[in-house]
Amino acid sequence: MLPGTRVAVLGAGSWGTTFAKILADGGADVVLWARRPELAREISEARRNSDYLAGINLPVGLRATARLDLALAGAEYVFVSVPSQSLRENLILAEPFLAPGAVIVSLMKGVERTTGMRMSTVIEEVLPISPERIAAISGPNLALEIAKEQPTGAVVSSISLETAQAVAKLATNKYFRSYVNTDVIGTEFGGVLKNLIAVAIGIVDGVGFGENTKASIITRGLVEMTDFAVAYGAHPETLSGLAGLGDLIATCQSPLSRNNTAGRLLGQGYSIHDVVKQMQQTTEGLASVKPVLELAAAKGVAMPIVEQVRQVLDGTLNPRDIAPHLTTDSSEPQGERTKDGQAHGSAALWGAFKRTFDQLRNGGRGPGSD
Amino acid sequence: MLPGTRVAVLGAGSWGTTFAKILADGGADVVLWARRPELAREISEARRNSDYLAGINLPVGLRATARLDLALAGAEYVFVSVPSQSLRENLILAEPFLAPGAVIVSLMKGVERTTGMRMSTVIEEVLPISPERIAAISGPNLALEIAKEQPTGAVVSSISLETAQAVAKLATNKYFRSYVNTDVIGTEFGGVLKNLIAVAIGIVDGVGFGENTKASIITRGLVEMTDFAVAYGAHPETLSGLAGLGDLIATCQSPLSRNNTAGRLLGQGYSIHDVVKQMQQTTEGLASVKPVLELAAAKGVAMPIVEQVRQVLDGTLNPRDIAPHLTTDSSEPQGERTKDGQAHGSAALWGAFKRTFDQLRNGGRGPGSD
Repeated sequence: MLPGTRVAVLGAGSWGTTFAKILADGGADVVLWARRPELAREISEARRNSDYLAGINLPVGLRATARLDLALAGAEYVFVSVPSQSLRENLILAEPFLAPGAVIVSLMKGVERTTGMRMSTVIEEVLPISPERIAAISGPNLALEIAKEQPTGAVVSSISLETAQAVAKLATNKYFRSYVNTDVIGTEFGGVLKNLIAVAIGIVDGVGFGENTKASIITRGLVEMTDFAVAYGAHPETLSGLAGLGDLIATCQSPLSRNNTAGRLLGQGYSIHDVVKQMQQTTEGLASVKPVLELAAAKGVAMPIVEQVRQVLDGTLNPRDIAPHLTTDSSEPQGERTKDGQAHGSAALWGAFKRTFDQLRNGGRGPGSD
Repeated sequence: MLPGTRVAVLGAGSWGTTFAKILADGGADVVLWARRPELAREISEARRNSDYLAGINLPVGLRATARLDLALAGAEYVFVSVPSQSLRENLILAEPFLAPGAVIVSLMKGVERTTGMRMSTVIEEVLPISPERIAAISGPNLALEIAKEQPTGAVVSSISLETAQAVAKLATNKYFRSYVNTDVIGTEFGGVLKNLIAVAIGIVDGVGFGENTKASIITRGLVEMTDFAVAYGAHPETLSGLAGLGDLIATCQSPLSRNNTAGRLLGQGYSIHDVVKQMQQTTEGLASVKPVLELAAAKGVAMPIVEQVRQVLDGTLNPRDIAPHLTTDSSEPQGERTKDGQAHGSAALWGAFKRTFDQLRNGGRGPGSD
């Protein structure tokens, strides 16, 4: 505990506001920056953020402002929770006001669409600070549950273990526990990739299938996530942990997840245009599809689930038609290869769904259109 | 497809009846054995199993009988779905009627309490057949969803790949796809161990926590499952697949799961006696706790989640008090060790829950009673 440590949180959406509460409840002196003055005023005066955290009372010690200079003045730690596509411009705005030696902590889960960069690497590129002063936080962290003080954990990751530990101490209180690791790549990619699988789960949910189907897609989705992240230097264990599997399950199972909701609307037949209009907040999963697939292609990693999601978003695949397109053709029982040639239970799973969906969808109609 | 292949299914609970439907819908000539004559009559005549599969219409070709000799006469494949604790006695009853060369397929997920043996090893011990003629099926297979013909997959496992493939062909139809592997140990232990984690999830659910908490317990539970199964010779990939993670997620997320329901009742404060009375069907998770912990201890595998469940079942831990007992004490941020000394996101997770639960539960009361 470092009671009274001066910290800033940039971004007053549901996660930024919840994280400001986590830090304030842990004893830090928190100033939350909201882009809109009326939201800053509501948080400071009414102790509410009715747009993003309806029904939650915010801590008395939590101050909010719409002035970036005031939020950042003297802040030893700056937690950033802005839409991932606006990170770069927000950092450029923030830079003149950053205190010397400040640590920058990403709370975001996404990649920059134009560059394919992870959030911590955007921070490293834009700000004149060493990577040892950058951290990222990820985990099974549905904001509203945490705002209600249901206990959960997260991982704080930095290439500097000391930085990770200092941030973890700030981000720990009676309902929130932060662990540390030094695998920033795996931690950040876990948070990015799970959003894409959550969209796929949402689509299948919108079609009307149950827990067997969803569990199978999560199982296969974790394989895609791990293959991708490891190709970029992550430790596979990170993907099996809080910032990978944990986050994936929480996101896929929650009706509160924006990515899940977006997928469900797509699965119910709404167009991407309608979905973007209906979603009040940014849906990182939708924004990350294209850069992730480009990064996957660059390393030769196959991501069939994410590829299907892209086709729906691009409008080249009707969301209602996603199922037959998930299928391949084979009537022989298949094994699932592992390194030692033994069969196992996950590798051919997506193929299983492709086939069963195909058969169900096509019925007597014969093969689908592709 | 082997249309008309004569198969028997022993046991007309929800899973046995559903599997008989899967096989009949795949073209096999199925006779389902029900212990109770009135149930056999309802299935044969009304095409219903109202006790176990309310609202499901069974295939016209599916016959049922309460006579074991008639069910087994001429059956080339015998699928067994009886309560795991009664497998041995049922096999002894069945043996005189088994056709020569019959393949025995376990549909069960449990271990024999008195011996700690897996179902396939009980079969191997009791029946005078070679292990090449024994198979086991597992996967994310909630019976009622499959009975409603929602598409799903499963793994058929046998040390003989040919046997696994033959069984997989029988157990494949337009909504159910069977894959094959030869890791019987991993496949069977996956189906056993997930039940125990589902009970733990149920308990936490009964206490009232949400998706973050459950996702974290699933994440940590998979680590326990994998450590255990690998210690007994399984391939870790099997536990990350359909028969491990896939089944675990489906079971933990489903309100239909008996293990989950049993845990939830325990979490709500019902005694194990009340829970057993309320549950109409066998709850394998409750029966497997003790033998699994004995097997874990024999190999030096730590299973803190399962150990807590045992204490609740034994009555040495009040279900309402499970949370503080899941905790340890440490206020320093912790890393999560991996082989290369890097920190990762899952190993210390259960510890995180221990601590957050502890703090929440104890509040100002100071440390718990142990």
